Amino acid sequence: MGNFKGHALPGSFFLLFGLWWSVKYPLKYLCRKNKSACYLGSRAGFQRLEFVEGIIKAAFALIGMVAEQFVPDGPHLKLYNYEEQHWDHLMNWQHATMYLFYGISGLVDIVAHGTNTLPVAVDRMVLSLAVFIEGFLFCYHLHGRAMLDVHVHQLLLFAIFGGAVCIFLEVFFRGSIVLEMLRTSLCILQGSWLWQIGFVLYPPNGSPEWNQMDHTNMMFLTMCYCWHYAFAFLILAVNYAIVYCCLSKVRGVYSEVDLRKILCSL
Amino acid sequence: MGNFKGHALPGSFFLLFGLWWSVKYPLKYLCRKNKSACYLGSRAGFQRLEFVEGIIKAAFALIGMVAEQFVPDGPHLKLYNYEEQHWDHLMNWQHATMYLFYGISGLVDIVAHGTNTLPVAVDRMVLSLAVFIEGFLFCYHLHGRAMLDVHVHQLLLFAIFGGAVCIFLEVFFRGSIVLEMLRTSLCILQGSWLWQIGFVLYPPNGSPEWNQMDHTNMMFLTMCYCWHYAFAFLILAVNYAIVYCCLSKVRGVYSEVDLRKILCSL
Amino acid sequence: MGNFKGHALPGSFFLLFGLWWSVKYPLKYLCRKNKSACYLGSRAGFQRLEFVEGIIKAAFALIGMVAEQFVPDGPHLKLYNYEEQHWDHLMNWQHATMYLFYGISGLVDIVAHGTNTLPVAVDRMVLSLAVFIEGFLFCYHLHGRAMLDVHVHQLLLFAIFGGAVCIFLEVFFRGSIVLEMLRTSLCILQGSWLWQIGFVLYPPNGSPEWNQMDHTNMMFLTMCYCWHYAFAFLILAVNYAIVYCCLSKVRGVYSEVDLRKILCSL
Amino acid sequence: MGNFKGHALPGSFFLLFGLWWSVKYPLKYLCRKNKSACYLGSRAGFQRLEFVEGIIKAAFALIGMVAEQFVPDGPHLKLYNYEEQHWDHLMNWQHATMYLFYGISGLVDIVAHGTNTLPVAVDRMVLSLAVFIEGFLFCYHLHGRAMLDVHVHQLLLFAIFGGAVCIFLEVFFRGSIVLEMLRTSLCILQGSWLWQIGFVLYPPNGSPEWNQMDHTNMMFLTMCYCWHYAFAFLILAVNYAIVYCCLSKVRGVYSEVDLRKILCSL
Repeated sequence: MGNFKGHALPGSFFLLFGLWWSVKYPLKYLCRKNKSACYLGSRAGFQRLEFVEGIIKAAFALIGMVAEQFVPDGPHLKLYNYEEQHWDHLMNWQHATMYLFYGISGLVDIVAHGTNTLPVAVDRMVLSLAVFIEGFLFCYHLHGRAMLDVHVHQLLLFAIFGGAVCIFLEVFFRGSIVLEMLRTSLCILQGSWLWQIGFVLYPPNGSPEWNQMDHTNMMFLTMCYCWHYAFAFLILAVNYAIVYCCLSKVRGVYSEVDLRKILCSL
Repeated sequence: MGNFKGHALPGSFFLLFGLWWSVKYPLKYLCRKNKSACYLGSRAGFQRLEFVEGIIKAAFALIGMVAEQFVPDGPHLKLYNYEEQHWDHLMNWQHATMYLFYGISGLVDIVAHGTNTLPVAVDRMVLSLAVFIEGFLFCYHLHGRAMLDVHVHQLLLFAIFGGAVCIFLEVFFRGSIVLEMLRTSLCILQGSWLWQIGFVLYPPNGSPEWNQMDHTNMMFLTMCYCWHYAFAFLILAVNYAIVYCCLSKVRGVYSEVDLRKILCSL
Repeated sequence: MGNFKGHALPGSFFLLFGLWWSVKYPLKYLCRKNKSACYLGSRAGFQRLEFVEGIIKAAFALIGMVAEQFVPDGPHLKLYNYEEQHWDHLMNWQHATMYLFYGISGLVDIVAHGTNTLPVAVDRMVLSLAVFIEGFLFCYHLHGRAMLDVHVHQLLLFAIFGGAVCIFLEVFFRGSIVLEMLRTSLCILQGSWLWQIGFVLYPPNGSPEWNQMDHTNMMFLTMCYCWHYAFAFLILAVNYAIVYCCLSKVRGVYSEVDLRKILCSL
Repeated sequence: MGNFKGHALPGSFFLLFGLWWSVKYPLKYLCRKNKSACYLGSRAGFQRLEFVEGIIKAAFALIGMVAEQFVPDGPHLKLYNYEEQHWDHLMNWQHATMYLFYGISGLVDIVAHGTNTLPVAVDRMVLSLAVFIEGFLFCYHLHGRAMLDVHVHQLLLFAIFGGAVCIFLEVFFRGSIVLEMLRTSLCILQGSWLWQIGFVLYPPNGSPEWNQMDHTNMMFLTMCYCWHYAFAFLILAVNYAIVYCCLSKVRGVYSEVDLRKILCSL
């Protein structure tokens, strides 16, 4: 996937999840806070949401794995080239491995929230491990590349490992809105930075290439990374405000009894 | 800002905040402890203080950003020099980015303590991220400088990342006086060390320059850093003692009823 | 122990413990959850299990220590060769030291669960230290080896230090099923990876050796490590499912009273 | 203090404190556990102990500082040699700085346990910082020394930073016997290892010097470090057992009422 699309695609997945979480978690928090006035955020409803999220995650991971294997220049499940005595398309296999762990995380979500057989915190633990393994594989991925290439991927590692630590903490502080917002912001950061990497390393539309050896480019990108994070904060703030306003309006228009009826009829 | 003023100014900001916190947190702690005897430290009062702090923080950050952009040799919002094909005044932009995150932290403080819409611990989380990003940008700031220059900035990183971790812990142990004192001491340390860096790298009043390559200078400065920290402890101890004595006196002179009246009349 | 057996043997120990834990902890968790319906998982029963585990751990450690000392080309308790003025068989001594700490951990388990004299969390603390010291000795073990050799051992360190941190956390979050499962998965990973190291560095049955300097081999093994972990997840999932089904069946066939009788008669 | 005595002296201090703690903490734990039967471990009694400990700590630190300054070849409070334009006896100043922070920790102990003015957890926080600063100064102490010299000091850093983290955790998990035992073991380790360093780098009695460049020496010392730790465990275990037996006997001989009388008459 050493091209623009190969970075834009997973970047879009992360952005999508980040944006969705930036709506879901404020909604959950505000509903829990104004318990008496809000029937939207029932426990069962949110559990069903997590269940659906698990299915989508597993589906995305499956799509990613299949794509990595069966793109025209992919390995087509062949791991070792016996004729020429070397490993075949290791990059694609590594990416597929990353997706595999997100797939496992999706499966665990499905089982944990669809049935009552699993301890609930397991979903976060497995997600944390999936993110950690993504970062782990990235670390050993960068050997022998150009300086700027290594640098932009290293910056990505901050978002990845930060996310892994944050999700690990959620195992112990489950439902902490602050950690959930932090995770969301890091997820958006990862998504938007993957797009940025695509633009920097594989400039589309015939833009001139970046000078891989220029130190000022590195300094600019470090700063740019922070701006991406500020941008993630902005998205979080806007979505939080929208959710807050919508909830206030809903509560103004419908009485509690109406809401209960509407929700029961769904 | 590669000059004496450029280090003394942010240093003064940090010292100011550190000194203020070294009064505020003992006051808060001692008031909470002797609840029945003290009406100074009401919850609402401290919330208003945090609100004002947020405004001051945001104002300082704005001043910093404007100063970095519009000093005579600043970038004046120009990021890329298209004629000579290179980035323009990246240092100033990086400093402005640091201030930006403190500004965001100030805004979050204002919203979190001025209204009831945000979860309370968000203020600490964002402050922690602002401090972390300051350290993050510093890390990638030092490439290719002289040994002593790198060393004094590296020492600063201990105070910065120590502060970031400490504030992050406060998200989970909110209102822990010990963590608040630790944060205060690290903030004072950062402020006084920024002044020290100014004196070492840009000696004012025509003092002779420090030998950047002398290993004993490095060893002395490492030790000097510890003395700065001992000095921060001293300030904390003195201010704690003063606050303690004042509170005892106040309680001695006025009866509870008087205090209640005085405070109600404010 | 620089041969195939020297890696396969400890690997088998870890696999054995990992497999046992992958049955024990789900059993414990599910019994605790359906308290009223299950008498298998009584507190005393599990305490006795931990006691037996301690004995087995101590016995394994003793076997390991004796084997390291008295294999034909071992040191036979001789540490320093006074004639040739050099240390004797340091590798074997280092391995024996690793086993020593597992032995101590076993002894502590025996005392902590056999009597009531020790604070309970001490068993986890000592186990955590034993694992940490294993990793610590491994770190200083790798000096001057070939690239691939260093790499596969470094990968092992992730499992070891991850396990040490996980067990340390269990001191504070004792009985957390999620941490116990994480520990189990890391234990299985360590065991199966030790087998893998054996196959890579000392290929049995006359297979051709791996090229120690080929970078693609490193990349493949990094990925392979992740597959081992996915495999550990699979084992955990299968064993969890088996335990779950068995418990449901047991509860279906026997009434509570029967179970109580059966267990009392044991 | 680059001689045998300079390592044996602080080593003895640490050993002394470690040995004392290995008696005190089991005593405290066992008394708290058998509350009804034991009046030795009253809260006030232990608070007075901590107070005395603070005095001793501060006294030791003062002795250390004075010794470092006024030994015959010490700096005698002179920091800069203006004639030859270089820093004077920086090593001694650095050691004095280390002692200074232990002195501060002692003072804080005295105030925190002698009066009720300070929040209690502050004593651990300051001790943690004192230990951290010891390690911090050690880190920047080793520049340009021989390989073995650096290695044995690096090993010491594990005990130091491990201790700092452990004490920091005690701020949040105050009175956890497991953390207190861990701290005690690391303190003994530090003390006995300082003696070992003395024997390795400055062999007394005219023993032959160690070859500073021999890699097997490094490997042996790494292992030796682990043995020191096993030895620390042994001391802990023996002292725990002794305390346990003594307490059982005391309880057997005297009735509760007797004990109460004896203790009141003290």
